[in-house]
Amino acid sequence: MSINSFGHLFRVTTWGESHGPALGATVDGCPPGVAIDEAMIQHWLDKRKPGQNKYTTQRREPDAVRILSGVFEGQTTGTPVQLMIENTDQRSKDYGDIKDKFRPGHADITYHQKYGVRDYRGGGRSSARETAARVAAGGLARAALASLVSGVEIKGYMVQMGPHQINRERFDWAQIDQNPFWVPDAKAADDWAGYLDGLRRSGSSVGAVIEVVARGVPAGLGAPVYGKLDTDLAAAMMSINAVKGVEIGEGMSAAMLTGELNADEISMGPDGPIYSSNHAGGILGGISTGQDIVVRFAVKPTSSILTTRRTITKTGEETEIITKGRHDPCVGIRAVPVGEAMMACVLLDHLLLHRGQVGENQGHIG
Amino acid sequence: MSINSFGHLFRVTTWGESHGPALGATVDGCPPGVAIDEAMIQHWLDKRKPGQNKYTTQRREPDAVRILSGVFEGQTTGTPVQLMIENTDQRSKDYGDIKDKFRPGHADITYHQKYGVRDYRGGGRSSARETAARVAAGGLARAALASLVSGVEIKGYMVQMGPHQINRERFDWAQIDQNPFWVPDAKAADDWAGYLDGLRRSGSSVGAVIEVVARGVPAGLGAPVYGKLDTDLAAAMMSINAVKGVEIGEGMSAAMLTGELNADEISMGPDGPIYSSNHAGGILGGISTGQDIVVRFAVKPTSSILTTRRTITKTGEETEIITKGRHDPCVGIRAVPVGEAMMACVLLDHLLLHRGQVGENQGHIG
Amino acid sequence: MSINSFGHLFRVTTWGESHGPALGATVDGCPPGVAIDEAMIQHWLDKRKPGQNKYTTQRREPDAVRILSGVFEGQTTGTPVQLMIENTDQRSKDYGDIKDKFRPGHADITYHQKYGVRDYRGGGRSSARETAARVAAGGLARAALASLVSGVEIKGYMVQMGPHQINRERFDWAQIDQNPFWVPDAKAADDWAGYLDGLRRSGSSVGAVIEVVARGVPAGLGAPVYGKLDTDLAAAMMSINAVKGVEIGEGMSAAMLTGELNADEISMGPDGPIYSSNHAGGILGGISTGQDIVVRFAVKPTSSILTTRRTITKTGEETEIITKGRHDPCVGIRAVPVGEAMMACVLLDHLLLHRGQVGENQGHIG
Amino acid sequence: MSINSFGHLFRVTTWGESHGPALGATVDGCPPGVAIDEAMIQHWLDKRKPGQNKYTTQRREPDAVRILSGVFEGQTTGTPVQLMIENTDQRSKDYGDIKDKFRPGHADITYHQKYGVRDYRGGGRSSARETAARVAAGGLARAALASLVSGVEIKGYMVQMGPHQINRERFDWAQIDQNPFWVPDAKAADDWAGYLDGLRRSGSSVGAVIEVVARGVPAGLGAPVYGKLDTDLAAAMMSINAVKGVEIGEGMSAAMLTGELNADEISMGPDGPIYSSNHAGGILGGISTGQDIVVRFAVKPTSSILTTRRTITKTGEETEIITKGRHDPCVGIRAVPVGEAMMACVLLDHLLLHRGQVGENQGHIG
Repeated sequence: MSINSFGHLFRVTTWGESHGPALGATVDGCPPGVAIDEAMIQHWLDKRKPGQNKYTTQRREPDAVRILSGVFEGQTTGTPVQLMIENTDQRSKDYGDIKDKFRPGHADITYHQKYGVRDYRGGGRSSARETAARVAAGGLARAALASLVSGVEIKGYMVQMGPHQINRERFDWAQIDQNPFWVPDAKAADDWAGYLDGLRRSGSSVGAVIEVVARGVPAGLGAPVYGKLDTDLAAAMMSINAVKGVEIGEGMSAAMLTGELNADEISMGPDGPIYSSNHAGGILGGISTGQDIVVRFAVKPTSSILTTRRTITKTGEETEIITKGRHDPCVGIRAVPVGEAMMACVLLDHLLLHRGQVGENQGHIG
Repeated sequence: MSINSFGHLFRVTTWGESHGPALGATVDGCPPGVAIDEAMIQHWLDKRKPGQNKYTTQRREPDAVRILSGVFEGQTTGTPVQLMIENTDQRSKDYGDIKDKFRPGHADITYHQKYGVRDYRGGGRSSARETAARVAAGGLARAALASLVSGVEIKGYMVQMGPHQINRERFDWAQIDQNPFWVPDAKAADDWAGYLDGLRRSGSSVGAVIEVVARGVPAGLGAPVYGKLDTDLAAAMMSINAVKGVEIGEGMSAAMLTGELNADEISMGPDGPIYSSNHAGGILGGISTGQDIVVRFAVKPTSSILTTRRTITKTGEETEIITKGRHDPCVGIRAVPVGEAMMACVLLDHLLLHRGQVGENQGHIG
Repeated sequence: MSINSFGHLFRVTTWGESHGPALGATVDGCPPGVAIDEAMIQHWLDKRKPGQNKYTTQRREPDAVRILSGVFEGQTTGTPVQLMIENTDQRSKDYGDIKDKFRPGHADITYHQKYGVRDYRGGGRSSARETAARVAAGGLARAALASLVSGVEIKGYMVQMGPHQINRERFDWAQIDQNPFWVPDAKAADDWAGYLDGLRRSGSSVGAVIEVVARGVPAGLGAPVYGKLDTDLAAAMMSINAVKGVEIGEGMSAAMLTGELNADEISMGPDGPIYSSNHAGGILGGISTGQDIVVRFAVKPTSSILTTRRTITKTGEETEIITKGRHDPCVGIRAVPVGEAMMACVLLDHLLLHRGQVGENQGHIG
Repeated sequence: MSINSFGHLFRVTTWGESHGPALGATVDGCPPGVAIDEAMIQHWLDKRKPGQNKYTTQRREPDAVRILSGVFEGQTTGTPVQLMIENTDQRSKDYGDIKDKFRPGHADITYHQKYGVRDYRGGGRSSARETAARVAAGGLARAALASLVSGVEIKGYMVQMGPHQINRERFDWAQIDQNPFWVPDAKAADDWAGYLDGLRRSGSSVGAVIEVVARGVPAGLGAPVYGKLDTDLAAAMMSINAVKGVEIGEGMSAAMLTGELNADEISMGPDGPIYSSNHAGGILGGISTGQDIVVRFAVKPTSSILTTRRTITKTGEETEIITKGRHDPCVGIRAVPVGEAMMACVLLDHLLLHRGQVGENQGHIG
């Protein structure tokens, strides 16, 4: 069991290496009758695609997705959907240096220790390139979600880069798509551009915090106690390359609150319960409340940097390494569409799970 | 699929409500030949048991575990192990008030919205009482781990209570078992006692951050990319009641680091690789490095407090609620042994997974 | 992974040994709001209970089921349902002889070879006593099925005992509950009584074929291609102790048919398609057609017999064995309610699966 | 959950339709370090390939497999292996007639009823073409098995075609590969050729029984009680298109035996237990004994025949249908390599499961 799958009913298995012939997602359990075509999925892949500006790796991949199965005459048939992306710009020779040396902070050493054999080219299976398959699956999940529930919106954005945080008072949804960092704060976008450019030119890298919000999610989704909505979201986000922390709602800061402050008070609105605040991040007891689902995750800095670091070789000799290749100074940027995709997959999965176990009989209030 | 199970090969299903006749864990996939008896499991349950001091709920439960299956003449047989704990001190009448009103910040409302029916007594299935079953399963996992790998140690402790953090320079493993908060800092333990006592007397509550460390874990555990060791740990910890954030190693602060600072440099020691630091928390690419595994999680404050909060009833009327009952001013305290138990279960599970897929052929260095 | 669970959404994990303190079923994923109590489940257990007549083992167990969780005020809450049956009449001393010797045709030797340790008392986990837990889970599944679809009827009966088959022309549903063999043919019931009594007195045993039919199952259930309805039924029946063959519809005889004979022709009735015959056993392409689901399975004779057989001991010495104890001359009899229970669980599971993936949007004809 | 996967640790997900651009198998959990290349897998696909003689469909597909991931420099890396086969000779126009009419005995009607939408071309997902992906996965499983245990041999053959059975006294392993029916009886092969040719020319079809034997399987494989080796084999075989019955060892005939006849007596050989017979088919209590594993399954006749049958249309009108296209007069022939492939996958899966749960500590005798 190598566990390259996630999801309970909407089940995504990704496959492929950074420099193999192709990679993709085998998606099982998509509801039938969902209108989908390659362009709808390509839309999301293009958002993640590398090489779009100077802040992401200069590898140029068209990342063109092909639907190989499960779709007939423009709609899903309920059978597995194979989403394949061929690798084209592989330039494997760039990676010869890491064949025998392990990059500090990278999965090189652990893949070697675990499997004894590894495709070292571009990080092989451990490359963030794997996330293209997630984004493709997420595109399908979005379409399926839209066909089942109207009004669900999923949006990711960066709220911190290195030591710099956004100013929540300047938060503007409209800004997110207007800058290369997906930042909802125009001033931050400007400020961070210079900061990151400096890091890029010095061959350094930096971490980031991404927030993903889902609005319009119906109450009742989540399967306590080990498939809680927050549990599955935490797993989904932590499975993304380089993620080291995940928060729901108040997150780590919940530790600092008293019970009075933390309790989101409830009143009755025209369409159901209304909450005075959202410390819970839209999830209580692992089940959605109907409020915005709010997830954050921290992405560590790329470990492939131009500064010399001490390391060892496969045969145990001490040495040094500089990673040249083509890398992202802030991988957090490209993690934004990935976080959105994971959110879409998890929500669809829980919608199907809920429909399966509970059907239409859920409890109403009022 | 209600997903009351976790684990891939060491598979734990918990069952039971706070005020039903009993609760327990059905554990499937435990290796055969593990020496175990009820006392060995009781040891860990006693650590979590409520009513031991004034800082935890005054509910008095012996929490006596019975092994109903899967163990014969003192050792596991490879068949399912049923660990049952009978409820004795239920005092259901205390909970009459929450039958129709939803406690803000609690799962009352979402269980109602999801299922239409709920056992409101003591929170039913959403009660932290469910974690007793985890601790029992964790006791079995510890025994199985010990039978397979020598030298693995798992230790949890509190590093933050409300706004108060421990001083890492005073960190002392020996202190952890010497105070009611499992704090590795004697001075903090003293200081926090007064703080928490004040909160308790005012009927308030506060959050906490727990850290769990596993030492002596062999390199190579973890199943990329959706059963990464950190992914499974994140899910395991986030599934614990009231947890709102999970961090591995540097955690959310990884966002603030540059690549140079984050990369744990590698040199060669007598028994394998040695790292200059552990920003990674012992996990790279989802696979253990052999360093300490370091996980932190934030527990929100108990939502059951003595201060009046606004809420609604099942029929949608606006009202107010004060939760009397017997509650923990800081549920984070009792989350410590639960976090340890989850760590034990996840590590054992991944040890079995690794053994199944890879066997003895993993890669060596040097 | 020891795999003591079955089902995708309605997930049953059984636990317990023949001579341990108790056994049971942990049932996860039962829909909420299903009316259930212990008496409703006891009804089915009583049907399977040993010691009711001279044709089944004289072990006398009340097999009283207790619901320990997941049910509140007479209905399921959507949380795990624990169904426990305590063992009372264990008489372990009867089994001392098989501690070191392996019974030919029995799981004694393979459990030893697999696990190295085994609870030999009464066969431990490999005892047919495990099927009591299935029958309890099946009782819950029947109640849940009834709450979701009206008119589903599940009925099992014996169609062959040793060389004797029923006469299909005398088939009478009303006879099934009128004789100890659950035979739908009054004359066969009479004839077989003498035959089986002779075998019983000589300490021998014999096999049987059981047929289970489900009527009123809606079209559309089944999850191709590895969770086909027939695939899951085959697994469910083959998992019952002593089963060596499973057939759907025409079964093994399908090999003898030509395409013309095998094709069940379709015409249009007032409520949907009508078939000229049911060679398919109600399943095409792994999906239910709306016709009767027809499954048969063969149960081998009990291997515990009074005739001396050659065998070996744990230490590899050749010896002989006679199994005294209290055994069934035809375990097939008690397999009837077990087959029904497995059918109920599988159908409910697929109803939930279908509802989850497809919802109400399935295709209609006409 | 559409369940297009099987296996616990060696997990195979097949995807693709008969007339889509491609089909394949996504294989997760293959052990690392297994020597494999496309030619080794192609070997088994060529055995199944259609159009090789007049007894199988005249569709001509090269069925060339491509390995897209998980293999590096000639060996598996422990990451998912994608095995893709492109469809080339699709001739979709042949199938226009079945767009609106349901073929009796075929999955057309149930796919429509379940999903509301279906790819009718060549049966879409329900086509036996899906089994090419199983054979590819089986080729990988064979290689992995060989790398873990020496001496396992898996061989399938036909033992019955329509009313004609082989003569077990003429059984000759060497004959199996010498005739188009994979029959281990030279005389039967001759006799059946004329019989089947007659059926083919009349546009009819007939069923068959296939037997698959695995020799050299170590004792101890199988995961009671719901992942028994026979349970998983039954599911694996029943999941193959057109299969209606599965038998282990004595199979349905076990019903006719007495306990004395059925019990395979045990003596002690130089390398472990020896059995006087193999009524059990190599499996006791769901666990392998070390004897030959013997599985049989019945394949119904192709439902696509040239004789007019009564049926209905999607809109519920009664009509008639003749299926022209290119079909197999006896699909059982091509089921032989598929049965072998499923056996290989199940055995490898259980070898990994056993290694994971039990390790090297299994019980020895003597």
